[in-house]
Amino acid sequence: MKINLISDTVTKPTPGMLDAMMSANVGDDVFKNDPSVNALEEKVAKMFGMEAALFFPSGTMTNQTAIKLHTQPGEQLICDKYAHVFNYEGGGVSFNSGVSCRLLDGHRGMVTAKQVEEAINPPDFYHSPLTSLVCIENTTNKGGGGCWDIEELQRIKKVCEKHRLHYHLDGARLWNALVAKNETPEQYGKLFETISVCLSKGLGCPVGSVLLGSKEHIHNALRIRKILGGGMRQSGFLAAAGIYALDHHIERLAEDHSKAAEIGRELNTLSFIKKVEPIETNIVIFEIDEDYMSSADFNSRLVEKDIHIISMGQGKLRMVTHMDYTDEMHAYFLGTLKRL
Amino acid sequence: MKINLISDTVTKPTPGMLDAMMSANVGDDVFKNDPSVNALEEKVAKMFGMEAALFFPSGTMTNQTAIKLHTQPGEQLICDKYAHVFNYEGGGVSFNSGVSCRLLDGHRGMVTAKQVEEAINPPDFYHSPLTSLVCIENTTNKGGGGCWDIEELQRIKKVCEKHRLHYHLDGARLWNALVAKNETPEQYGKLFETISVCLSKGLGCPVGSVLLGSKEHIHNALRIRKILGGGMRQSGFLAAAGIYALDHHIERLAEDHSKAAEIGRELNTLSFIKKVEPIETNIVIFEIDEDYMSSADFNSRLVEKDIHIISMGQGKLRMVTHMDYTDEMHAYFLGTLKRL
Amino acid sequence: MKINLISDTVTKPTPGMLDAMMSANVGDDVFKNDPSVNALEEKVAKMFGMEAALFFPSGTMTNQTAIKLHTQPGEQLICDKYAHVFNYEGGGVSFNSGVSCRLLDGHRGMVTAKQVEEAINPPDFYHSPLTSLVCIENTTNKGGGGCWDIEELQRIKKVCEKHRLHYHLDGARLWNALVAKNETPEQYGKLFETISVCLSKGLGCPVGSVLLGSKEHIHNALRIRKILGGGMRQSGFLAAAGIYALDHHIERLAEDHSKAAEIGRELNTLSFIKKVEPIETNIVIFEIDEDYMSSADFNSRLVEKDIHIISMGQGKLRMVTHMDYTDEMHAYFLGTLKRL
Amino acid sequence: MKINLISDTVTKPTPGMLDAMMSANVGDDVFKNDPSVNALEEKVAKMFGMEAALFFPSGTMTNQTAIKLHTQPGEQLICDKYAHVFNYEGGGVSFNSGVSCRLLDGHRGMVTAKQVEEAINPPDFYHSPLTSLVCIENTTNKGGGGCWDIEELQRIKKVCEKHRLHYHLDGARLWNALVAKNETPEQYGKLFETISVCLSKGLGCPVGSVLLGSKEHIHNALRIRKILGGGMRQSGFLAAAGIYALDHHIERLAEDHSKAAEIGRELNTLSFIKKVEPIETNIVIFEIDEDYMSSADFNSRLVEKDIHIISMGQGKLRMVTHMDYTDEMHAYFLGTLKRL
Repeated sequence: MKINLISDTVTKPTPGMLDAMMSANVGDDVFKNDPSVNALEEKVAKMFGMEAALFFPSGTMTNQTAIKLHTQPGEQLICDKYAHVFNYEGGGVSFNSGVSCRLLDGHRGMVTAKQVEEAINPPDFYHSPLTSLVCIENTTNKGGGGCWDIEELQRIKKVCEKHRLHYHLDGARLWNALVAKNETPEQYGKLFETISVCLSKGLGCPVGSVLLGSKEHIHNALRIRKILGGGMRQSGFLAAAGIYALDHHIERLAEDHSKAAEIGRELNTLSFIKKVEPIETNIVIFEIDEDYMSSADFNSRLVEKDIHIISMGQGKLRMVTHMDYTDEMHAYFLGTLKRL
Repeated sequence: MKINLISDTVTKPTPGMLDAMMSANVGDDVFKNDPSVNALEEKVAKMFGMEAALFFPSGTMTNQTAIKLHTQPGEQLICDKYAHVFNYEGGGVSFNSGVSCRLLDGHRGMVTAKQVEEAINPPDFYHSPLTSLVCIENTTNKGGGGCWDIEELQRIKKVCEKHRLHYHLDGARLWNALVAKNETPEQYGKLFETISVCLSKGLGCPVGSVLLGSKEHIHNALRIRKILGGGMRQSGFLAAAGIYALDHHIERLAEDHSKAAEIGRELNTLSFIKKVEPIETNIVIFEIDEDYMSSADFNSRLVEKDIHIISMGQGKLRMVTHMDYTDEMHAYFLGTLKRL
Repeated sequence: MKINLISDTVTKPTPGMLDAMMSANVGDDVFKNDPSVNALEEKVAKMFGMEAALFFPSGTMTNQTAIKLHTQPGEQLICDKYAHVFNYEGGGVSFNSGVSCRLLDGHRGMVTAKQVEEAINPPDFYHSPLTSLVCIENTTNKGGGGCWDIEELQRIKKVCEKHRLHYHLDGARLWNALVAKNETPEQYGKLFETISVCLSKGLGCPVGSVLLGSKEHIHNALRIRKILGGGMRQSGFLAAAGIYALDHHIERLAEDHSKAAEIGRELNTLSFIKKVEPIETNIVIFEIDEDYMSSADFNSRLVEKDIHIISMGQGKLRMVTHMDYTDEMHAYFLGTLKRL
Repeated sequence: MKINLISDTVTKPTPGMLDAMMSANVGDDVFKNDPSVNALEEKVAKMFGMEAALFFPSGTMTNQTAIKLHTQPGEQLICDKYAHVFNYEGGGVSFNSGVSCRLLDGHRGMVTAKQVEEAINPPDFYHSPLTSLVCIENTTNKGGGGCWDIEELQRIKKVCEKHRLHYHLDGARLWNALVAKNETPEQYGKLFETISVCLSKGLGCPVGSVLLGSKEHIHNALRIRKILGGGMRQSGFLAAAGIYALDHHIERLAEDHSKAAEIGRELNTLSFIKKVEPIETNIVIFEIDEDYMSSADFNSRLVEKDIHIISMGQGKLRMVTHMDYTDEMHAYFLGTLKRL
């Protein structure tokens, strides 16, 4: 029994999802004639109470497109030092948009409105880049699945309005935050100019992300998606999986969260675990006490049992629970941990 | 009976292809763990006798990635004035690579080695952009599905070698050229540094293109694909369709070609048709004699019969035959043309 | 006696100009505290009846800045195939702005409003780059110093307004056009959103160009100039030369024009000259009849006499008259031509 | 008596320098025919024992050009969080090169080889930008004129060699470091692939910087300078000032340093000064104890006496001594400080 906790991106479609895919009504989405893609876009826009939406092949492309929509080359965006857009999008912020990142020293990937405001460059001091965008990530990936306080997000929105900054949410795992905090998509739709959400992580789809925004933003996003090469043809097969997931896979994220919490509790009982970061959703980040055991050693003991997790560097390890991590696997894994 | 001749991109998977997709063995391709994607990449590389291949969500992204691989910002590529990379990739050459296009005045999208050589900027005259790449398109889309003379392509290769230029083939419809000219993929694999081929046009797949090149080029292409946002997860569903198409849908392109030729012959009998461009593959470009009938008028008469074609601007119209254009549709369409 | 007709950029300051430079009142222009630079900018803005102006180290930088002001990456500008911005600015349009050029096949570097209008890409066809700017060059350099018909420029302005395109003038040698056509700077100030003019060509300054536009454009241009590295410190030494030149060196351009015309007439009497292009200002472009003499041969005969001109490629040669081409040199050169 | 300590860029040429400028032998540097520019470039290259050099209108352009020489878009450079290239070049790193900055938390703008090595992204982890360049600034501007330990620079060089990173020195104020540490240009020429030095700061020239490197780098830099718009014509007037300064103004930097040290000692005696950063060269950074007096208040008291300094934000103030800050001014300023 192989247990893959490397990421929630490794899931495969359930039989129900596969049925939905294979019976999808499709067309050529480059001409905007794919009914499944159009239905998905309408469905997500409606969920968030936003004007329009656009389907993309990846979360990186939704974020990169949003950043391009809000900036001109040479400008600067503000984000946490752990932000996915800075760390894990291949340098795309500068490649695709010619934009630099002003990194804030937040807590678990989350910052305060005060930090944001202090990081804005004076707009008339032309030696420094013009600050024009704030990017938030919720939940935070490198921050360990942390969920933002929505009131802080509202305070940051006010800072953005005051200083005429754009405001984008990287919601790759926003579904997890909504479930964990009992919040609604509409609450986020009111806060941000653009939001990206992924279908291929907790929701279990094989491929796909959606960008949300005003009609004008989505109209312009279509052109940027084309330029980046994200225009696909009968992508309704992928969109149909998305529709199915939105109908069937959101509430069940609570299971992933409770399993993650149980893993955390188990880890906390182990003498050679130095620290387990707080667990709010489906991500568990922890450190080995390297005086007792190296993290490489720990990792290889798990691999012997066909259990796979990932290193974050600097002695940190990460596990992510997901749809394909079954109750049976969970029992086996907890037992394995006890016996280590 | 709706007849859609707007493009060969509008096809839907056959039952056999859908079966192949449904039963695909998949994994997370971002970690290069999708067996279907890996199998497709190996299969295409082997067909062309090239070292490596990489799956992409679109033909635009394969071309844009190849151009980036071969250039630095500020440099110039040489292509025909009809080239897809200049005309129909949203300005991506300059957006993604910061590169300009030196357009040649070719014949039906095809140019000579002499034209290429004369268009190279002197490398030490630093006021002009440095020429660094030649892009060929085969078959030519805007050029009416024309097939290159492979000996001219060899002569251009020699010019590239002499002047240290890179050499890329946009083979979105290369399959059609191979069938029409009775050529092999290996012949092209020997000529070009990089080749892009589409699975979603004549081959009938819903989504997907493949970039071919050396191991080093494909290694670097993986990074560029990531930056552009083309990294997908369980994309094996799409790759499985590609494998099926390569096994079952290449030879049948000859049918599309013969139907296109028959349409051309029929058009040539019509008094109000001014000119039908030579038909070598599955694309038919023709002009209405606007003294008799406007092209808009012609178009709307077809729409009345639920037959859909596309305008190329400047009085030109285009039809493209494909897998989903059946014998029955063909008989009906030819009959309709006769009765116009 | 060395005669340099390679370009009008080779002039050295007159004693009067050198005095003006060395007695200039200067400050740090990066803080906008250089009184000479400020005075020059105000003077030029007033001449053109435009709101503001900014001093730059080169004409390339003024044009590149203007193009950046008016575009977003991926967009397309329209210009003549001979345009300096496409041919002689190192590929900067795509490097600095990520923009492509749609080249028109004009006459001596000049096009019609009809040509411009036909070249605009449909704004909703997102496969093609969005057209957003028209660039005019007056006089035309590669076009042989041709002067535009100001009424055609007005018609192009109307096309720009109708299609919401920006409108920039590369006026590197606009002074020559104003003198040749007896036009005023104000006439051009009313036509264009931004204008670049050079001080280092016909006007005889060592270094410097000026960009003109609205206050908002110049405010934004300051930031772009900074990013490109065009912010200089005590540049008042250069600006003082500019002020002197505007006061003393505009009207005398008529002398350069009449000398160029005389050279043209002399060339037309020579049997081995195939064609002399019409001469409107200070540029003489002509072709050798290579059956009689190669252009390289012609060139080397001149070099023997210490007379230097430049090749334009494809058998064309160019001479440019200027302030440092004296009456004595002129007499000697005409005599030399007669004796060839 | 106006005392301007805002920056060492505010100096005006001495009579000797002005004479050198006025009598300069000039030509058109775009054709590389300006003897004074050529002489300056050779002189600086020889001083550093490097192959070649190129004159630029600004230090920003030398740095931006060097960064472009060493990188491809999407890559990442490593520098201290105070680095001029990140903070004060208008966002040019991402605008001109499409590159992101990995900022290190150094001490007064200086970091260790260990910090550099830990910040390198794993080259095969394609989700993160590829690290390709390390930029050093000596002396540090925002770091308060700090001078690097040359042995640390050697250790960083080894890290660069091990990981195949390029290595650039922003030596805008390197002359100050050489004088303060009694080091030679050759020592730096051996360490770095490219070095930029400014003539317009401590050396007192009105305009100009020089980029140093291999012949190949400088050959490529010429093209980039052209693209950015840094090609000037008779720039020998500016270069002549540079030659004069190299001959006459290096050793005298020691005076600026001792004046800065004296100011620092005086500041340390004042009760309302919270902290004076260590003074190694000509920059004095200090903080007001805002319980006693606000920094704005302190500033305005100085302005009353026509003494001008600059705020660094966050309660820090900066003074920079220079050639035009005379002994008389110094005595007056010290007296004024005592009386505050």
